[in-house]
Amino acid sequence: MTTVDTILAHAAARREASRARWFDWLRIPSVSAQPQHAGDCRRAAEWIADQLRSIGFTAALKDTAGHPVVLGHHPGPTGSGRHLLFYGHYDVQPAEPMELWTSPPFEPVLADGPNGRRAVARGAVDDKGQVMTWLEALRFWHETAGGPPCRITVMVEGEEETGSKNLPDFLDANAEALRDADVVVISDSNMWNIETPSIVTSVRGLVYTQIDITAANKDVHSGLYGGSALNPINLITRILGDLRDEAGTILIPGFYDGVAEISAERRAQWDALNFDEAAFLGGVGLSVPVGELGRSALERLWARPTVDVNGIWGGYTGEGAKTVIPSQAHAKVSFRLVAGQSAPKVIAGFRDFIVDRLPEDAQVKIQVFTYGEGIEIPSDSPFIRAAQVALTAEFGRPAVLQGGGGSLPVVQQIKEIIGLDCLLIGFGLDDDQVHSPDEKFDLVCFERGIDSHIRMLAALAEA
Amino acid sequence: MTTVDTILAHAAARREASRARWFDWLRIPSVSAQPQHAGDCRRAAEWIADQLRSIGFTAALKDTAGHPVVLGHHPGPTGSGRHLLFYGHYDVQPAEPMELWTSPPFEPVLADGPNGRRAVARGAVDDKGQVMTWLEALRFWHETAGGPPCRITVMVEGEEETGSKNLPDFLDANAEALRDADVVVISDSNMWNIETPSIVTSVRGLVYTQIDITAANKDVHSGLYGGSALNPINLITRILGDLRDEAGTILIPGFYDGVAEISAERRAQWDALNFDEAAFLGGVGLSVPVGELGRSALERLWARPTVDVNGIWGGYTGEGAKTVIPSQAHAKVSFRLVAGQSAPKVIAGFRDFIVDRLPEDAQVKIQVFTYGEGIEIPSDSPFIRAAQVALTAEFGRPAVLQGGGGSLPVVQQIKEIIGLDCLLIGFGLDDDQVHSPDEKFDLVCFERGIDSHIRMLAALAEA
Repeated sequence: MTTVDTILAHAAARREASRARWFDWLRIPSVSAQPQHAGDCRRAAEWIADQLRSIGFTAALKDTAGHPVVLGHHPGPTGSGRHLLFYGHYDVQPAEPMELWTSPPFEPVLADGPNGRRAVARGAVDDKGQVMTWLEALRFWHETAGGPPCRITVMVEGEEETGSKNLPDFLDANAEALRDADVVVISDSNMWNIETPSIVTSVRGLVYTQIDITAANKDVHSGLYGGSALNPINLITRILGDLRDEAGTILIPGFYDGVAEISAERRAQWDALNFDEAAFLGGVGLSVPVGELGRSALERLWARPTVDVNGIWGGYTGEGAKTVIPSQAHAKVSFRLVAGQSAPKVIAGFRDFIVDRLPEDAQVKIQVFTYGEGIEIPSDSPFIRAAQVALTAEFGRPAVLQGGGGSLPVVQQIKEIIGLDCLLIGFGLDDDQVHSPDEKFDLVCFERGIDSHIRMLAALAEA
Repeated sequence: MTTVDTILAHAAARREASRARWFDWLRIPSVSAQPQHAGDCRRAAEWIADQLRSIGFTAALKDTAGHPVVLGHHPGPTGSGRHLLFYGHYDVQPAEPMELWTSPPFEPVLADGPNGRRAVARGAVDDKGQVMTWLEALRFWHETAGGPPCRITVMVEGEEETGSKNLPDFLDANAEALRDADVVVISDSNMWNIETPSIVTSVRGLVYTQIDITAANKDVHSGLYGGSALNPINLITRILGDLRDEAGTILIPGFYDGVAEISAERRAQWDALNFDEAAFLGGVGLSVPVGELGRSALERLWARPTVDVNGIWGGYTGEGAKTVIPSQAHAKVSFRLVAGQSAPKVIAGFRDFIVDRLPEDAQVKIQVFTYGEGIEIPSDSPFIRAAQVALTAEFGRPAVLQGGGGSLPVVQQIKEIIGLDCLLIGFGLDDDQVHSPDEKFDLVCFERGIDSHIRMLAALAEA
C-alpha cells in the first residue's frame, strides 16, 4: 500500500470526525460585514489556528486594520523541495434574510438531496467547507505520515466577503516570507459537474465605477425648462448608450489594447467542454446571447472584456408622473477585463470617453470602487500537471481546464504583490446556494475534496 | 364717470373687505390630495357657492367621482350678447414640509416684501387668490351695477392639483350648457413682470410615459453572465440615448408631423420680448441651451416639442459595488407637444421606436400616465383684443402675448370636449413660491387683478 493509499484509507475511516470538526467551525457566526460579529470572526480565526497547531503547525493570528489573518507554517520533511501556500477565508456572508432558511444558518444540519446527504449552514461551502477539505487532508497526512510531504504555509483571512480590503497590506508586509512559496492553492470554486473536477486557469479583472453627472444646480420643471435646460439623464443615456456598437464592440479608444486571442491549446480545451450556452441562458429565461459577434460563448464569458451598467438612477422614480428635469443622474458602470489589459488605462479611457461627450454645463464625478486586472494562469505549469495526475486518480478523469468569468481579487493581489500563480481547484457545485439562504455542501463533494487534497499534496510535493 | 370708473372706485374703497373674504377662504385647508381633507374640500366648494349666491348667482355643488365642482350662473342683463365662462380651482397643494413655513400655511398673514405687502398662505395665489380677483370683480359689478355686464357661468373644480381626473366626465356631462359660452377666462398664470400683464396664447401638450424593460427572469452575476446575458440597463440607455441626434432633433419617425413654423406675427411678438435666455439658464446654474439648433430660445421653450427622461432606475443603486446584471430597467419619458401634433401618434411612434430596438429576449411594458395635445390660441381673437384694451387701460401698456412651455390639461380638455378657447390671464409672479412653502401673492398683484377683471368684464361683454 502506498503512503497515499494508507492516508486515504485512514481518512475514509474518519468521515464522522472530519464532519464534526467542520460543523464546530460552522457554528461560529463569523460574518465579517457585521460589526456585532467581530468577536466571532476572531473566534473563527483562533479555531483554525488551534487546528493547525494540533497537526504540527506553528500558527498565529496577525492583526490587520480589520479582521486578523491566520498564518500557519509547517517545515515539512527535511530537504523537501516544494513549498505550497494554502489560502482560504474564515469569514462568511451575512445570513439574512433569516426567514428563508429551512434551518438556522449557524446550526449546521445534514439534509437529503439528489447527491445524497448535504450539510446546510452559512459557510458550509464558502469557504469553511472548502478550507476543511485541505485542512483535513493535512491532518490525515500528519496522523499517518507524521506531517505533510513538503513545506506548507497556510494563510486564512477574514475579510474576503467584504472585498479583502486589508489583504494587500498584509501581503506587502509579509511578501518576503510568502514569496518563498512555489504556488498558491485555493479551494473556493466549483467542479465542472459532480463527476468532473475543474481547474480555473484564468479570471477576469474588474473595474467598477460610479459616475455622477450634475447639470443644473436644482431640479427644474420640464414644462418651463424643456427645450433649454440640459437634462443629465438624457445625457447619461446618450453616453452609456454609445459605449458599444451594434456588434457588441466596446468603443472606448484603446480599450482592447493588450487583449490577446486565446491560444489554440486553450481553444481546444474549451471547445472540448461542449458548453451549452442555450441551456446556460435558458436557466435565467434568456435565449439569445449578447456580447461580441463572431466569438464563441466561452470566449465571451472567459476571455473577452465586457461593459455592464450595473445600476442607474436619477430624477423621479415614484408612482405616476412628475415633470422634472433633475439636477443629477448616476450610474454604476463596470468592466470585466482580461489578461493583458491595463486597469488604469481602461479607467483613463472611460474617463476620456465621458469627458469628450460632456457639454460645457455638465460636471462629472467618477469614483472607482474596485479594480483588478485579468489573470491568465499558464495551463502547462508543473503544478497543474501534478494536480491533474492526482485528480485523474481520484475521479477517473482529468479536471476540466476552464476560464472564469468573475473576478477573484485575491488571485490578482497575490500575482501582483508576491508574484505567484494560483492553483484554483474547488469542490463546490453550481447549486450550492453560495451567499443565499440554505447554503449547502454535498458530503460527497466534501469527502472527495479531502481525498483529492491528500493526493494533490503528494503530487505537488514532487512537481 | 363711466360705469367702470365707478366700479373701480368702489373696489378701491373696499380693499380690506376683499382681503378678509380671500383670507376666509384661505383658512379652509382644501388639500385635494389628502383624504383627511375631503371635508375641507367640500367646505371650500360651499364657501364659493355661497359667495356666488351672495352676488346674484345661482350656484350648486355638482358631485363627481372625486371632489365636487361648483357651478354658478348669472343671466346678465336682458339681451346681453356675450357669455363668459370663468374657470378656477378651489383645491390647493399639500403644505408639507410644514417646518419650512415661516407662518402656518392655513393661517394667512400679511408680510413685507420688495413689492410691498404680500399675503402668505397655501393657496394665496394658486388658485384661490387668482379666483378671488375675478370673483371680487363680479362682486363689485353686482354691488355697483346690479350685476355683471353679460351672461356669466362659473366653474370651480376641486381636483386641479391632482390632475383634474374627473373634469373630462364633468365637461362631457355638462357640455351642452357650457358650450353656449363664448370663451373661457382663467386666471392661473403669471404676469410677464410686475409692471406688465401677460396673455398666454399657446400651451404645450404632454405625453408622459413609463417604460419597463425586462430581460432575464432574475438578477444575475455580471462576472458569470457578462458577455452572454442581455443587460436591460445597457439596452435602455442605448434606446433612450438614440432619441435625439447631435443637433437636438428627435429621431422618432413622424414625430414632427403636424408641427408648424410659428407665424411671422407670433415671431415678432416673441422677438419683442427680448427674452434673456442666459439669465433664465443662469438662474439654475446653466449657461448653454440644449434643444434644437437654429431655433430661438422662446421657440424652443414654447413652440417646439421636446423629449425628457424625467426619471430612470434599475439595478444596484446603493453604496459601493454590486456586480449585478439586473432583470429590469425602468424610465419615465415625457414629451412636450405643440399644436398640430397628435398625442396618440407620438405614443405609437415612441412604442415603435422602442420595439424596433428590442432584442428578442427583452419585453417592454409602456404605460401612458398623462396625455394632452398642444394648444395654440389665435392671438387675433376679439376676446384677446378686448382684454388688451382693458389691460392697457389698467397697466398703461398692453399685455405681453406669450407662449407657455408647460401643459394645462384643463385648457386641452375644454378645447377638446366643449370646443372653446381659453383666455389665460393671470396675475401671479414668478417668485410666488407656488407649490412650495411660504406661497405668497403680492397685494399689488391681487388688487390690480381685481381691477383688471372689472375692466375686462366690460370689454369682453362687448367684444
